[in-house]
Amino acid sequence: MQQRLVEMANSTSIIMEKASQAFLTSDVAKADEAIALADTNEEKALALDELVIRILAQQSPVARDLRVLVSALRISASLERMGALAGHIAAIARYRFPGSAVPDSLRKTFEEMGALDAKLAKKVAGVLSNTDVDQARAIQAEDERVDELHRSVFDIVLAPSWKENAMFTVDVTLASRYFERFADHVVDISAKVSYLTTGEWNETE
Amino acid sequence: MQQRLVEMANSTSIIMEKASQAFLTSDVAKADEAIALADTNEEKALALDELVIRILAQQSPVARDLRVLVSALRISASLERMGALAGHIAAIARYRFPGSAVPDSLRKTFEEMGALDAKLAKKVAGVLSNTDVDQARAIQAEDERVDELHRSVFDIVLAPSWKENAMFTVDVTLASRYFERFADHVVDISAKVSYLTTGEWNETE
Repeated sequence: MQQRLVEMANSTSIIMEKASQAFLTSDVAKADEAIALADTNEEKALALDELVIRILAQQSPVARDLRVLVSALRISASLERMGALAGHIAAIARYRFPGSAVPDSLRKTFEEMGALDAKLAKKVAGVLSNTDVDQARAIQAEDERVDELHRSVFDIVLAPSWKENAMFTVDVTLASRYFERFADHVVDISAKVSYLTTGEWNETE
Repeated sequence: MQQRLVEMANSTSIIMEKASQAFLTSDVAKADEAIALADTNEEKALALDELVIRILAQQSPVARDLRVLVSALRISASLERMGALAGHIAAIARYRFPGSAVPDSLRKTFEEMGALDAKLAKKVAGVLSNTDVDQARAIQAEDERVDELHRSVFDIVLAPSWKENAMFTVDVTLASRYFERFADHVVDISAKVSYLTTGEWNETE
């Protein structure tokens, strides 16, 4: 089961990589790949839930084992949402093609957000595979940078210098929200792993 | 446990009512009430999860009972998100005060969305309390109207006649997304109840 969660986390990293590329370069093929992988990711989450239910039924675990299984359900739900959120970013790119959804003034910001999100998903795969609590704490710090970038998107959009049309404003608002939520789920997962490992909540927020 | 889920669903309806009012009338007191209730709602979700884990540990349920308990975990997660989403809508109202976050051209749309969302949450409380499958199907139909309104927000924002500044564009984009996701969760819950009752997925999407 742990192996499946690690695989799913690695998949969400790849989905996010493809989705960011699609979003930044208006690459429809990449967008389609991201969307297809998000669908597969959803199926994997459902299959994992069924596995958890089977284990609960057959082994009637208690104490820590039970908590690990219930956490696996929550982690799988987060990983499913992460895939879906990356899929939404890819869908924006697809929808605006052949135009771009990213104005020049926000290109660097979204490049950094996309790269951070993909990196965070890869790190959480590591946390899931070795339950390294220090790594889990590092993730929570890196999420702060994503939040900072998210707020900076609004600073740029709401500044008098913002001259883009409403379509760009809508696209970047939603995309930024999706990037931010993706990282939130990574934090939720790493907080759960820390909790299972140490019995203490380390979530910073 | 069922009683707790019903109570939580009724609470999310009240939170949404207050949040919509706050959003539509720039009522800061209402916004604060909604945000405080969303916090309580989150605590209730955590308490319910603990109860489910306790039942799993003490009674080692199998078959349908086990599925009901696992579904309760998912339903509680959805209800928690619904409260949080309504809280986000209230937070937008708070943030823009004393200004309004709602331009006149979208007032009617958001009035309808807010009223529908509050009604849907009340209906899902009914479904949770009496597992009425017809009611669950009606919910899925009503969600389509919310999706339609959500799309209509973008039609208005992206039309040449839209002259509002980027702040309004950002606010209505996010608010519309929150209203839409709130209704999505209602659909997820009612689909789960239908599934538990009939063994068939009736989700329309």
